[in-house]
Amino acid sequence: MGAYEVTLPVRFGQVDYAGIMYYPRFFENFHAVFEDMFTARLGVPYTSILEDRRIGFPMVHIETDFRRPFRFGDPMRLVLDVTRIGRSSITFRYRGFNGREPEPSVEASAVVAVIDLDTFDTLEIPADIRVVLEALKG
Amino acid sequence: MGAYEVTLPVRFGQVDYAGIMYYPRFFENFHAVFEDMFTARLGVPYTSILEDRRIGFPMVHIETDFRRPFRFGDPMRLVLDVTRIGRSSITFRYRGFNGREPEPSVEASAVVAVIDLDTFDTLEIPADIRVVLEALKG
Amino acid sequence: MGAYEVTLPVRFGQVDYAGIMYYPRFFENFHAVFEDMFTARLGVPYTSILEDRRIGFPMVHIETDFRRPFRFGDPMRLVLDVTRIGRSSITFRYRGFNGREPEPSVEASAVVAVIDLDTFDTLEIPADIRVVLEALKG
Amino acid sequence: MGAYEVTLPVRFGQVDYAGIMYYPRFFENFHAVFEDMFTARLGVPYTSILEDRRIGFPMVHIETDFRRPFRFGDPMRLVLDVTRIGRSSITFRYRGFNGREPEPSVEASAVVAVIDLDTFDTLEIPADIRVVLEALKG
Repeated sequence: MGAYEVTLPVRFGQVDYAGIMYYPRFFENFHAVFEDMFTARLGVPYTSILEDRRIGFPMVHIETDFRRPFRFGDPMRLVLDVTRIGRSSITFRYRGFNGREPEPSVEASAVVAVIDLDTFDTLEIPADIRVVLEALKG
Repeated sequence: MGAYEVTLPVRFGQVDYAGIMYYPRFFENFHAVFEDMFTARLGVPYTSILEDRRIGFPMVHIETDFRRPFRFGDPMRLVLDVTRIGRSSITFRYRGFNGREPEPSVEASAVVAVIDLDTFDTLEIPADIRVVLEALKG
Repeated sequence: MGAYEVTLPVRFGQVDYAGIMYYPRFFENFHAVFEDMFTARLGVPYTSILEDRRIGFPMVHIETDFRRPFRFGDPMRLVLDVTRIGRSSITFRYRGFNGREPEPSVEASAVVAVIDLDTFDTLEIPADIRVVLEALKG
Repeated sequence: MGAYEVTLPVRFGQVDYAGIMYYPRFFENFHAVFEDMFTARLGVPYTSILEDRRIGFPMVHIETDFRRPFRFGDPMRLVLDVTRIGRSSITFRYRGFNGREPEPSVEASAVVAVIDLDTFDTLEIPADIRVVLEALKG
């Protein structure tokens, strides 16, 4: 399967005074592709992981390089894959390409924990989710 | 002078389904303290730097550790200082303490460029801004 | 042509502590369908209206009824049409249906002005935009 | 006691491409003054109403007039009062003044329901909250 990909246009409400994507908004887009990936690859709505299984994925560490700005209306092609799968934590990689450009204009490495939403204790990654993550490693 | 500090309560609209601060919202708070610091330390509204002098500070790289969650209503005491001043780039440090706790629950290192907002070319840091940044190094 | 329609899932970052769509986020979705409608119906990116033609559409008045909540993951089917076209103002109607439900769960009537973005003076609606708006009246 | 008032500067991340407050952001500010009012007037954190007492205030209907734009850096003086108190619903009024101007630049009338957050059934307004609301009627 490999990486998961969604294209999101830069919205009017996402650009700042300088006319470029306001940097906190990138993280909202990252989360959107994260949600959509689970829904598409796990075959059930992402929400069911949280609501029915009470599993959460809080961010522990994220490093992001902003190489070139995105302007209002630019198509942000977001590519999500996985670079590391631990016992109860995962490192995702987000790369944002401006349309058809060959190199990412934004790139992030994000470590998330896997937790029980009721106790906030870490959880071993469940088998069905691990299968999805392994497929994302490409 | 040293570090600049503002306390912002975690808002209803900033927490997520899990009842904790949604991680993209931290960056909005970081920007708020960044704006307020310039206004307080430069003695003119932050906006005048952008509007009148056409200087911008786009994010180039940011690394963030989320150590403990912030819950709805928690007072986020944000402390901003500077760890590096280059010719046309600056490394800021953001530390977020949950009320009176001694260790930061969130910590970020953020490299911003200094640019001309009309051309997006880098600019040498102007002298009056450099004075403010030096004072932030504590 | 008639109404323009887009379906947007309710995102993790859009729900509040109560697990339902935080009401300010509805307006962000309204703006997204507004942008997409222009791009689709005018045949040029919405951004070109603002950037090249310097035309803006500030909100003057909006009334919104929130009839039933949207929960995290619900598909919000947003239907945009026009109920009034003036000389330099337009009344849009937004209706948000939860998936296939027959009645809208949220409904808004929004009056926007048409202005010159450089002077903020009102503008007579340009002919090509008026054609798009007439088609939206269905 | 009368109306409750907070001044919030228009933030960099709140303005849009046109350099003025993006209209969905007004509603976030309205919610901030709503939260602060309860904390100040009830003498306990607003969060305790939701978390401990499981009472919520979902928006049912809101009408807003945007009379003059707010620009980046403008001080938005938000004044909150109450125009109607029902059995299980309340009409709040939000007026936003640009600094010391005598007339509000933005004005909203907002009907919220009072509900049990676990069942989403309406609740009779509790006595201590009614006292706070009556005092807001001025």
